[in-house]
Amino acid sequence: MSLAEQALSYVRAISPYQPGKPITELAREMGIPVDSIVKLASNENPLGVSPKAKKAVEAAINGVERYPDQFDLIKAVAERSGVAQGQVVLGNGSNDVLDLVARVFLAPGRSAVFAQHAFAVYPLATLSTGAELIVTPAKNYGHDLEAMRAAIRPDTRIIWIANPNNPTGNFLPYPEVRAFLESVPKDVVVVLDEAYNEYLPPEERADTAAWINDFPNLVVCRTFSKIFGLAGLRVGYALASAEVADLMNRVRQPFNVNNLALAGALAALDDHEFIAESYELNRRGMAQIVAGLQRLGLEYIPSFCNFVTFRAGDGAAVNQKLLQQGVIVRPIGGYGLPEWLRVTIGTEPENARFLEALEKAL
Amino acid sequence: MSLAEQALSYVRAISPYQPGKPITELAREMGIPVDSIVKLASNENPLGVSPKAKKAVEAAINGVERYPDQFDLIKAVAERSGVAQGQVVLGNGSNDVLDLVARVFLAPGRSAVFAQHAFAVYPLATLSTGAELIVTPAKNYGHDLEAMRAAIRPDTRIIWIANPNNPTGNFLPYPEVRAFLESVPKDVVVVLDEAYNEYLPPEERADTAAWINDFPNLVVCRTFSKIFGLAGLRVGYALASAEVADLMNRVRQPFNVNNLALAGALAALDDHEFIAESYELNRRGMAQIVAGLQRLGLEYIPSFCNFVTFRAGDGAAVNQKLLQQGVIVRPIGGYGLPEWLRVTIGTEPENARFLEALEKAL
Repeated sequence: MSLAEQALSYVRAISPYQPGKPITELAREMGIPVDSIVKLASNENPLGVSPKAKKAVEAAINGVERYPDQFDLIKAVAERSGVAQGQVVLGNGSNDVLDLVARVFLAPGRSAVFAQHAFAVYPLATLSTGAELIVTPAKNYGHDLEAMRAAIRPDTRIIWIANPNNPTGNFLPYPEVRAFLESVPKDVVVVLDEAYNEYLPPEERADTAAWINDFPNLVVCRTFSKIFGLAGLRVGYALASAEVADLMNRVRQPFNVNNLALAGALAALDDHEFIAESYELNRRGMAQIVAGLQRLGLEYIPSFCNFVTFRAGDGAAVNQKLLQQGVIVRPIGGYGLPEWLRVTIGTEPENARFLEALEKAL
Repeated sequence: MSLAEQALSYVRAISPYQPGKPITELAREMGIPVDSIVKLASNENPLGVSPKAKKAVEAAINGVERYPDQFDLIKAVAERSGVAQGQVVLGNGSNDVLDLVARVFLAPGRSAVFAQHAFAVYPLATLSTGAELIVTPAKNYGHDLEAMRAAIRPDTRIIWIANPNNPTGNFLPYPEVRAFLESVPKDVVVVLDEAYNEYLPPEERADTAAWINDFPNLVVCRTFSKIFGLAGLRVGYALASAEVADLMNRVRQPFNVNNLALAGALAALDDHEFIAESYELNRRGMAQIVAGLQRLGLEYIPSFCNFVTFRAGDGAAVNQKLLQQGVIVRPIGGYGLPEWLRVTIGTEPENARFLEALEKAL
């Protein structure tokens, strides 16, 4: 048998994640200057980095010869979330904590439930363990909780829910999510991924951190990659019962979050001014882009996030024409939505540049 | 069944890695100031961070709101190693690449061979997949390659080799390693972990990067955590056949190395002055500590790394007495060496402080 044939069959079958095209890559490919490119492809914060985080990272550079110590960030996240320190698991981005849950509960002969058009890391995390993926059809491009509950089998160990969902932007009101948690068997883990939580309008929010004490099978995931502006630092976290957190820590690499990431996240957590400014910029930018899409007569999915997904017709062709104009958005054919494109809300000039390029591309 | 009982039995059985005690932790526990503590517990570079890396990290902070792009570091590592870009896999520390190899080739019903007293991450990476760990007895505290070859079973998929080995510091001359590679079945992966490679005297070195083209089942692992002084940034890499590298990339989290880590590692790679200075400091410090151990009449294992392991008698008790004096070394009872302690080579004053504290502790 060849060496590659000795690799696990389910690993050989994985198609790697397709990230948003980096600015540097488009610049290399097109031979155009980096600063002429607008990237609205990866739901990054157009305001950049929180100034407090930047200062904290600078201060932490002397010391990166030391292995990291997660104590301070775990303590701060626990305090801000109102949970115990043993209920917090840090990840190298929230991707990492999603992977940890999968590695604790999934293996061949087990299954996980996932909604059509939901975040691509859930199938990757599931399939890399050899577990089976049960896909339930979307309802208005979002999660159909009724269908997801009905899809649970005796071998189901995880249900993946993104709320709001990426790449469609849909939101499930929290009373529905809570009712769902009440209805799910207690020995099935529900992963509630709230990467975009901080973009929700205040009236829609809920204290889901407190829910982990009501539902020991609930794992709430959050990230510093979105409103906190630290995607490049790679920090996310999970809140879970102490029992589940302990299991996740058994498969966690001991130094999975880097020193500068720990320092930056700790400072960003309390940069309320930056968070408020980012929220406001997103609200205004969303209105600007939605108005532009309406002007162009394009269908879009109302979004609770820092991006909006619209029907471009031939998504791949329109994307190509946008790239030629130095505008990077995200084609989502891989999500079963080949007619649609996802655009991140940028600054006012970035949004205007995108809308102008889109009009030309159509 | 309870939720925890639904976790995979082999994950429930894992004992998490015990890292070196962080300075901040000892300071918290003992209520003593951070700068009165000497940490020689984690084989970190006592010179700190490469100045070129520091500068590059500072320059990259504006931009950490973007997801990372690994292109430049992969290109540089490939060029410096004389391999193709498709033969390089970056990791969040070399711990990450070790984990990736395990996830590609190991599962319940498969096994991996590992030498007694070798690096603790190999058993963790193995056991977290549900594979069986075959432990071969050490020879003079190091790998017994003959015994390891003999231990290979039809279900064996990985052989873990640390050269030099942590925590014992032993070194297998490269002609022996090459002969071993010749003798191993071609469908068994040999992971050659060279985290301490840059501390080898020039006459012992070999171009193992080139060997990946002779042995498609060879995975060479390196790290930026040791001589490059970037343990806190978390960057390591694997060199492997394009086929194995591709498989590892299928289970790799797409953004597993952070922006600042990529920038720092890229600059550190060519900071030859810093590497030479670190090498020299280590050579002198090793002589200083070995002379001190001899003066105290203590047995030690001749080391090819930036640490040395010595027989303290009751390792836990001596360690406790060192901690009380603000000196952190590494007890290695978990490695089956409860009488021994491992001390990292520090600066001249740190080494002197350690030797003084050790004399009092004995």
